Order: sequence, then structure tokens, then C-alpha cells
Amino acid sequence: MPYDHTRDYPADILARAVKVRLACFDVDGTLTDGRLVYDSEGRELKAFHATDGLGLKLLQAAGIAVAFVTARRSPVADLRAKELGVASHTFVQDKLACVREIAAGMGIGMDQVAFMGDDLADLPALLAAGLSVAPGDAHPWTRERVHWRTFASGGKGAARELCDLLLAAQGHAERLLGEAAAKAAQA
Amino acid sequence: MPYDHTRDYPADILARAVKVRLACFDVDGTLTDGRLVYDSEGRELKAFHATDGLGLKLLQAAGIAVAFVTARRSPVADLRAKELGVASHTFVQDKLACVREIAAGMGIGMDQVAFMGDDLADLPALLAAGLSVAPGDAHPWTRERVHWRTFASGGKGAARELCDLLLAAQGHAERLLGEAAAKAAQA
Amino acid sequence: MPYDHTRDYPADILARAVKVRLACFDVDGTLTDGRLVYDSEGRELKAFHATDGLGLKLLQAAGIAVAFVTARRSPVADLRAKELGVASHTFVQDKLACVREIAAGMGIGMDQVAFMGDDLADLPALLAAGLSVAPGDAHPWTRERVHWRTFASGGKGAARELCDLLLAAQGHAERLLGEAAAKAAQA
Amino acid sequence: MPYDHTRDYPADILARAVKVRLACFDVDGTLTDGRLVYDSEGRELKAFHATDGLGLKLLQAAGIAVAFVTARRSPVADLRAKELGVASHTFVQDKLACVREIAAGMGIGMDQVAFMGDDLADLPALLAAGLSVAPGDAHPWTRERVHWRTFASGGKGAARELCDLLLAAQGHAERLLGEAAAKAAQA
Repeated sequence: MPYDHTRDYPADILARAVKVRLACFDVDGTLTDGRLVYDSEGRELKAFHATDGLGLKLLQAAGIAVAFVTARRSPVADLRAKELGVASHTFVQDKLACVREIAAGMGIGMDQVAFMGDDLADLPALLAAGLSVAPGDAHPWTRERVHWRTFASGGKGAARELCDLLLAAQGHAERLLGEAAAKAAQA
Repeated sequence: MPYDHTRDYPADILARAVKVRLACFDVDGTLTDGRLVYDSEGRELKAFHATDGLGLKLLQAAGIAVAFVTARRSPVADLRAKELGVASHTFVQDKLACVREIAAGMGIGMDQVAFMGDDLADLPALLAAGLSVAPGDAHPWTRERVHWRTFASGGKGAARELCDLLLAAQGHAERLLGEAAAKAAQA
Repeated sequence: MPYDHTRDYPADILARAVKVRLACFDVDGTLTDGRLVYDSEGRELKAFHATDGLGLKLLQAAGIAVAFVTARRSPVADLRAKELGVASHTFVQDKLACVREIAAGMGIGMDQVAFMGDDLADLPALLAAGLSVAPGDAHPWTRERVHWRTFASGGKGAARELCDLLLAAQGHAERLLGEAAAKAAQA
Repeated sequence: MPYDHTRDYPADILARAVKVRLACFDVDGTLTDGRLVYDSEGRELKAFHATDGLGLKLLQAAGIAVAFVTARRSPVADLRAKELGVASHTFVQDKLACVREIAAGMGIGMDQVAFMGDDLADLPALLAAGLSVAPGDAHPWTRERVHWRTFASGGKGAARELCDLLLAAQGHAERLLGEAAAKAAQA
């Protein structure tokens, strides 16, 4: 009998994850490690993570919409969002209002929304989301007020852990692993 | 009864923190992880942290002045200071003299100044400040001569821990958390 | 009697390593720490590691072919491969097919191929390789399905650990250390 | 009675350190964390550390010569060396020969030379130096063949630990700390 990845999560978290149709991610500190890198000519750099990127693509392939929601103006976040084919909402003053608008546009309720964030500006959206998740190294005021915390830190696989939870809860983990094994077995 | 964040700190540190009107921060090793990044065309890069930035904005909103005080010439530090709306003192040969001048200009005493730094060049200012703080990974000669050490390392949330201490000591922590919760509760 | 580095490894891993004529490496998360760094003008940056580079050069000097195999288009990976004198296969949709083709071109079987990778896209190639290795911080679905896991994380010496294993298994570790000692002893 | 920093080190290491007139440092993995960062337009970036830089300046002020010795061509290492006022030897094929030549030019013996390095290419110079030091995360083949290992990793304060050892052994630690305290005590 193959391993069932839903066993990795508590029942109440799975119950929340099974409903999710939209997963929203803060950028700095969530999809990145929070570092804001500047060079002496005014350019900004940001470090996303390959393993998070693969997770976000797998979510979309499984029919779960993905959006970036960030308070900062960020051409780099826009670029990364475009590369992954996800919606990018930058320079957002009120993240909760933004998420409510996206959900309304999709005709879904807030109980079908997962939000992942790491700091005070994310807290209203986290408190209103059906599933709220913080990276393991999120700010303590936020970390203590979410449904679930990842083991990984922001920008180092935290977002992928939420993707894995949603994929497992909605029955995609074993399917994906089975496809990889079948491919290797082909002559 | 809501959690009272002043319980997180020892009484003598709170007594020092409650008086602070000016918080001064060294840059390299304090607001950054100490890395000096150069490219092959002579540009310099520096990595600040989003969570520190939010803390510095919350300090200012709470009426505490903020200044960067660094020995290096640094267009990147100036750029980050401007973004956060704080004063930037770069290429400072004598940090203690610089801090005394800022305090004098504000009409406050050194007991109303917090200074955060990580190495020998910060030590005179640290020894003279009302509240001296070092990042958890500061140089041992400095780390052993301050009032308080953060858990986080420089550039990875150390400055935010000082902000949180000042906000808690001056009664802003519960207010900020309450505002976030109220916002989430609005229809 | 000098230390015998083969003692550092289990017998079944050594039996696999002794056959290897081709070592293939995924790039992001394996030769790098998985961070995809972008600047605000659209440039991409990647961080390889000096200690991995030396290992890849030692492998080649010992007669083991080396190839990068990555799903991303990456001028940076090409540049690093060129610097090390190794083959670079980028924008590869099917890594297993790519590895099979390289092996066929060399006239060797898949039992003579080592593959190192960290995530789902590497899994078919890992499952088909004679020796499959994952960095210590690889994604759990992958990490649990390989012959051997390194202690180091991707981009921080993980690839060098595989090089050291291959060098030790094929009798080169003591020779290289002896050469360094002889050089130091010369007047 | 003030703390005596020589107590932090074993007697045989102090005996070696007290003689040192020249301290040579490998660059990648020693003065940096070993990452070789490239951008998509072929630029190279390197991250040095502020706390190492201060240590190298204190060494020179205490009359100990400092040199970078690296196998790579590196405009970035040259730039950092120039900033710190130290000699930069790049693209060095034989590090031991290079160090012997510098020592001969100064009229000192190899017992008056400290060498710090992290990998196989450094081993001949390490084995011939009066004091050989490796960063805490150096490659195991090297780490096991030096007189002393630092607690810090390369690029994260390892070089500063060697500076601190040399300063303490030669009587400068208490003097520097006393000067900082005297400065803070001035009105």
C-alpha cells in the first residue's frame, strides 16, 4: 500500500485545505527570505526559490488559482509571477480588501481561500482566510495567530510546504509520485 | 485578558526602553548580515530585511526618531534610509560624537537614546547609550558589553526585536495587534 | 597506515560508486541553494560554490565525465559549465531522456551513471540511475527515493560530497592528499 | 582585573600566533562563504564580511602584514584588497610558492607566517605555515590537517577569529577594548 501523504497533517488542517480554490502569497518574507537587496545604482534584487516555483506550478495544474499579494512596488515580483503564470498584485495598501476582491471575482467565499504571510501587514488577511499559514520564521505576532506554520523558513521552501499540503489534501500527491515512477520504469 | 508583551522582557530593560526617544542603528552587521557584496564592475550591494523595515516605520509612527549611523560611505544605506524616511549618517568616523550631536539637536539626553551595533567601532556609542543592544551574532567583544542581545542575527530581524521591545515598553504592541484584528472582523 | 576514505561509506553505496563513468547534476537546488535571484532590470543571478567546482574538476581529472542537466533556460549555468569544462544541458523537458542519450553516446549503461537532484522533475532520472543522490535539504518526496543523501545542502557542498564519494570509491582520495603533502615537504 | 583574552586559546596555538608577522588568506570559502555568484550578463559577485574587514585593518595597525592568495582571477578580490590596503595575489597556481616568495621578500621564515584556507588547493601552504587555520566549515580533507579551526564559517567571521587570536596573542586585545571604554567615558 503506497504511503498516504494526508497522514502528514492534522485533521482540522486537512479539512480547511480540502476546500481551497485560491492560494494567495505575500512576497517578502514568504516567497523570499525577507531580504531587500539593493545595489549602488538603485537596482533592487529579490531571491525566490525553485522548489516554491515548482509547487506553484503544480497547484495551478491541479486547478487551484495562485496570486501574489504584496505591499511593495516590485518589478521583480511581477517578473517572477509572469514566469510562473500567476496573478501579481503589488503596491497593495489593504491586502485583505485585495484578497476579498479576487475571491469575489472567482465567485468563492473566504473559506475557500488560503493566505500565507509573515508579518503584521498580512494579519488582517490571515485572520479572515479559510486557511492561514505562516513561514516557520515569521514574526512572532503573526506566527502565533495562524492555523498552520511551516517547518521551512520564508524563501527557503515555506510556500512549497503549503502547496504540498493542498496537493495532498486534494489527492494529488500520490498521483504525481506515481507518474514519476511510471516514467522511470519505461524502457 | 489579552497577552501583555511587556512580560517578554526583564524589568531593567523595560525601564531603559520606556525612556527612548531616539533609536540609532549601525548598518553593516546590524541592519544587514555584515556581508559586503561587490560585483566585478565595482558596484556594491547590501541586503536589508523587510521585517526590520516595518519595525522602523512602526517606531516612527509611535513618535520615536530613527537614524542610521555607519562608518562606511554607502549610497545603498542612503537609499534604504530614504525609503523608510529615516536620517542616514554615513562615513561617520566617530559614531558616539555623531549620536551626541543628534541627541543634542533633539534636546534629549543620552539616557533617551538606544544604540544598536555589532562591532568594536560601535562600542563607544554603545557604552554611552541609555539602552545598548547587539544582534545575537555580534562580535564577542561587543556582545559582552551591552544591556541586551537579540535572538535574531544582524540583517535577519535583529533590529525588529529592538523595535518590538520599544513598542511593547511604550504600550503600542497590544494597540497594533488590536487594530489588525478589528480590520479582519469588519464585514 | 594512512586513513582509507572508503571507510566513510556503506558497502552498497561504494559498489554503486565504483562503476560510475558519468556524473549528472541538476542545477537549481543541487549545484545552487535553489534561490532564483532576479534584479529589477530582468537579469538573473545564480550562486554556485567553489568547493563543488573543485570537486567537478577533480572528477574530470580522474576520468569521470560530468554534465549539468536542468529544466531552466540559464545563461548563468552555461557560463559556469564552460568555466569548469563540463557539458551543459539546459531547457531540458525530460531529464531522464537527456541522461539516457548522453550515456548512449558514451557507450555506457545507466548503471554507470550517477544522478544528483533535489525535486520532482529529477525523480525519473534518479529512479533510473545506477547511483542516485539528493542534497540533504532536497524535497521530501525526492529525498526519500534515492540511494544516498549528502550531509550538505544544495549549493553548499552537496555536489562535492558526491565527488568525494566517487573519488574515494575509485581510489583517488589518498593519492590527492599524498600529492599535497609531498608538495609541502619540498624544500 | 580585566579579562585576559589569551585565556581563550590553547598554549600551543598561542605559541605559534605570537611569532606571526604575515597573515595570508585564501579568498573563496575563507574570506567568502564559497559562493561564486554570476549574473546573466557575465558579471561575477562576491560577498566579503564587514567584521573580517575590521579585523584585517586591526592586524595591519598592529604591524602584521596581510595578503590575499587565491587561485581565481578576481577583480572583486582585488577591489576588496585595495579597500583594506592589503596585498592581493590572484590567479595563483601554486599558493605555497607565492607565500614563500612574500615571506622571503619580508625576510621572515615560514614559522612567522599564518595561512588560512578551506580546501585542497590550500593544503600545501597550510602544511608549510607556522600557523595553519581553517574555517569551521572547511572541506574535511583540509579541516583535519590544520593547527586550528575557527568556530565561524568562511565569509561569516572566520577570518576575524584568526585576527582576534593574533591580536590577543600579541597583546592588543585589552588595549583596543580599553581605548573604546576610555572614549565612551569622555564628557
